[in-house]
Amino acid sequence: MSEQKLPTRAEDFPEWYNTLVVRADMADYGPARGTMIIKPYGWALWENIQAALDKRFKATGHVNAGFPMFIPQSFLEKEKKHVEGFSPELAVVTIGGGETLEEPLIVRPTSETIIGHSYAKWIQSYRDLPVLINLWNSVVRWELRTKLFLRTLEFWWQEGHTAHATKEEAEFETLQMLNVYADFAENEAAVPVIRGRKSESERFAGADETYSIEAMMGDCKALQSATSHHLGQNFARAFEIRYLDKGNEQQYCWTTSWGISTRFIGAIIMVHGDDQGLVMPPRLAPYQVVIVPISKTDAERAAVMEAARAVRAELTAADIRVKVDDREGLTPGFKFNDWEMRGVPLRLEVGPKDLAKGTVALARRDKPGREGKSFVSREGLAATVAAMLKDIQQSLFDRALAFREQNTFDPKDYAEFKSAVEKGFALSYWCGDGACEAQIKEETKATTRCIPLDQPGGAGACIHCGKPAAEKALFARAY
Amino acid sequence: MSEQKLPTRAEDFPEWYNTLVVRADMADYGPARGTMIIKPYGWALWENIQAALDKRFKATGHVNAGFPMFIPQSFLEKEKKHVEGFSPELAVVTIGGGETLEEPLIVRPTSETIIGHSYAKWIQSYRDLPVLINLWNSVVRWELRTKLFLRTLEFWWQEGHTAHATKEEAEFETLQMLNVYADFAENEAAVPVIRGRKSESERFAGADETYSIEAMMGDCKALQSATSHHLGQNFARAFEIRYLDKGNEQQYCWTTSWGISTRFIGAIIMVHGDDQGLVMPPRLAPYQVVIVPISKTDAERAAVMEAARAVRAELTAADIRVKVDDREGLTPGFKFNDWEMRGVPLRLEVGPKDLAKGTVALARRDKPGREGKSFVSREGLAATVAAMLKDIQQSLFDRALAFREQNTFDPKDYAEFKSAVEKGFALSYWCGDGACEAQIKEETKATTRCIPLDQPGGAGACIHCGKPAAEKALFARAY
Repeated sequence: MSEQKLPTRAEDFPEWYNTLVVRADMADYGPARGTMIIKPYGWALWENIQAALDKRFKATGHVNAGFPMFIPQSFLEKEKKHVEGFSPELAVVTIGGGETLEEPLIVRPTSETIIGHSYAKWIQSYRDLPVLINLWNSVVRWELRTKLFLRTLEFWWQEGHTAHATKEEAEFETLQMLNVYADFAENEAAVPVIRGRKSESERFAGADETYSIEAMMGDCKALQSATSHHLGQNFARAFEIRYLDKGNEQQYCWTTSWGISTRFIGAIIMVHGDDQGLVMPPRLAPYQVVIVPISKTDAERAAVMEAARAVRAELTAADIRVKVDDREGLTPGFKFNDWEMRGVPLRLEVGPKDLAKGTVALARRDKPGREGKSFVSREGLAATVAAMLKDIQQSLFDRALAFREQNTFDPKDYAEFKSAVEKGFALSYWCGDGACEAQIKEETKATTRCIPLDQPGGAGACIHCGKPAAEKALFARAY
Repeated sequence: MSEQKLPTRAEDFPEWYNTLVVRADMADYGPARGTMIIKPYGWALWENIQAALDKRFKATGHVNAGFPMFIPQSFLEKEKKHVEGFSPELAVVTIGGGETLEEPLIVRPTSETIIGHSYAKWIQSYRDLPVLINLWNSVVRWELRTKLFLRTLEFWWQEGHTAHATKEEAEFETLQMLNVYADFAENEAAVPVIRGRKSESERFAGADETYSIEAMMGDCKALQSATSHHLGQNFARAFEIRYLDKGNEQQYCWTTSWGISTRFIGAIIMVHGDDQGLVMPPRLAPYQVVIVPISKTDAERAAVMEAARAVRAELTAADIRVKVDDREGLTPGFKFNDWEMRGVPLRLEVGPKDLAKGTVALARRDKPGREGKSFVSREGLAATVAAMLKDIQQSLFDRALAFREQNTFDPKDYAEFKSAVEKGFALSYWCGDGACEAQIKEETKATTRCIPLDQPGGAGACIHCGKPAAEKALFARAY
């Protein structure tokens, strides 16, 4: 563990984040500029995120597959907007096996093109539809300004790619997966999100519509946490993904894609973390409970270690993820700080006095000091711990939601709007015009994060230009 | 499903394999030469393989992490033998974000070098040891002659990388992981394996010792199924992985690495497959049971579909992986062939007569025709099916072991040896000399697969040169 002091969030939020990611042993930079090593503690969180998502993908009929990381350069050029969007960010393999390649290979920035090529081969008839495939992999986008988890040259994610017979089915899929992401974010990560449609300028390169979930970080900036794209027939036409319908006519498919990445780990850190370090949501935490045995003498140590192991067995049997910190030569205080830094939701202390009384001490990570500490009976401990973890999960969500609501504004005019987006989110009527959006961005650094699906109804005047507006947009400064 | 006819194994084993992989919907070539797409049915098998291995890795104290795919070119050059071994096979990124890179990046062929660089930073003291990390990822080796699963430009695998304080601990780890692989291969995949030490010429580039498990395929050739490397202090010295011991002295670490890849899917296909198609070992099969409802009239269809769904619910509740084939417009015969091709261990038929009698028909994939067919009561069906799956698992292992034993020879002299390695494995005394090994290879195409850990004891004369030999080696033609 690096010993660099953690600044408070109020002092320097970006530096708090950078220091915390390293001190909590989540990730580190790789030797090639901008690449990331996700360390075991960070990867354990990612594995729990994967499991929670994968279960939802399979429950909605999707299957996983493995696609190559190399895409022939010519593929990228087949969809005009797609290549415009991605070509500045590509990593290109020009040498293989000691020879210069005739056609360079692109390391995938995303897989729509190679998927399009394959689906065109695989899909012949309406009987072959829908195709509902997901990939867990990593992708490469050449980024110059990197930040661990939030923006790295290579990142891990999943990318879903589906093909359908009708526009309606593709639309249903796009929104279904948006809802899967929102359900995951809120109920697994305790991160409240706003579901919405992207403006044209914020859309995925090659999509007819992009939907996203947006979350408010601890510094009141927005983070796009997952996206779901209705690709229309754009990729189907570029790659000739066609099917013979029931009337024996050739039709183009309608396709979608959707993804969530290791960037979301950044959201978990910035939504729940505090000045003591990470706060892991219990449902995704690598360890839900850390047991710290406390003893002075060898005899005490033997007794408390035995109790600690018994508690571990009891909690493990109840499907609770437990770590016993039996490191020697470290004080309990050091261990407390260490696990607070790593955000373990619940600390369980066992000392000689506890043994005598048949109790253990529990300390909640979400409530520092006395407020979060209680002494509970060894009897029925697994149920007590499970209930407390559930309560922590809920209280993290409630706190994050209250924070977002406190920092979301409904400005009366553009002057108020300008100060609102310095402080947090602004929900304001917007005319929908890209030029107006660009001016707002230039003047305030705030972008349209999305046009929320939940609308107040009615109509109003654009917060910037005053023209009639049918919908409110969510404006914020964003990661 | 492609409709190319499956040749028998006797007619043309390589063509049988190539056709089967495609017809069973396991994999396909990607658009960039030599790359592979693992289709959902193949990937589901890989996911089950991953789960079975990951459980064993975690039970032996390992944790997973994520490392970058890009390695600075200079890293590869730090370990002399390593760079010699891998440099002809590298894919090189020379352009990133539109600019030519100052230092080209290698797409990892394996991660010892970047791991070495990181461990040197992470490990300071004996308290930091051992480090026991595993990675699930894909790697790239530029191969000109490719074959799906067996040899592709990119393949998926896991690579374990550990660092230890002493040579003994590293040796223990290397053999422990070899045993984990053997346990997995035999008890999950029903693939009998021979554990052994590689000769110097077959060693991993940069290892002091390489151990492997070797299996006999259906054409009697050998396939190296997993490897475990004792890297000595070679990478520790190249990358300065050092620790302060208890006596406050700087020491070099001892490191290991070990891996198994999607190549093992090729072994499962070639060990168990028959002239009708794949035969999946039940413990790893994507679907363990396929239910085929049989009906003529609409009324019958409604009744058998209801029964099929009830059976599915019952089996699923008993943790059995079930697929109901409710596709319309296909005959039962077509479905039977289709699922035989895909190797589902058990077919369960439900027709109107079964409903009346309270039975279902079960057909074992490992015993074609009448021998494998039985009619069993609906009562206690989950237990019946579970027992039958267990029996299939065991019988696949027994059959593969008997086949290997029938085709493993103990030749009396070099003339017999030459004909033995045309037919199968030869277990023969070998002097250990690399030049002798090279001559054998040139004369017979057989290589030393390994020097088995299980030795008869005693000593003999080298099967080729007649010099004294202390150990028998396993010779075979190999994939």
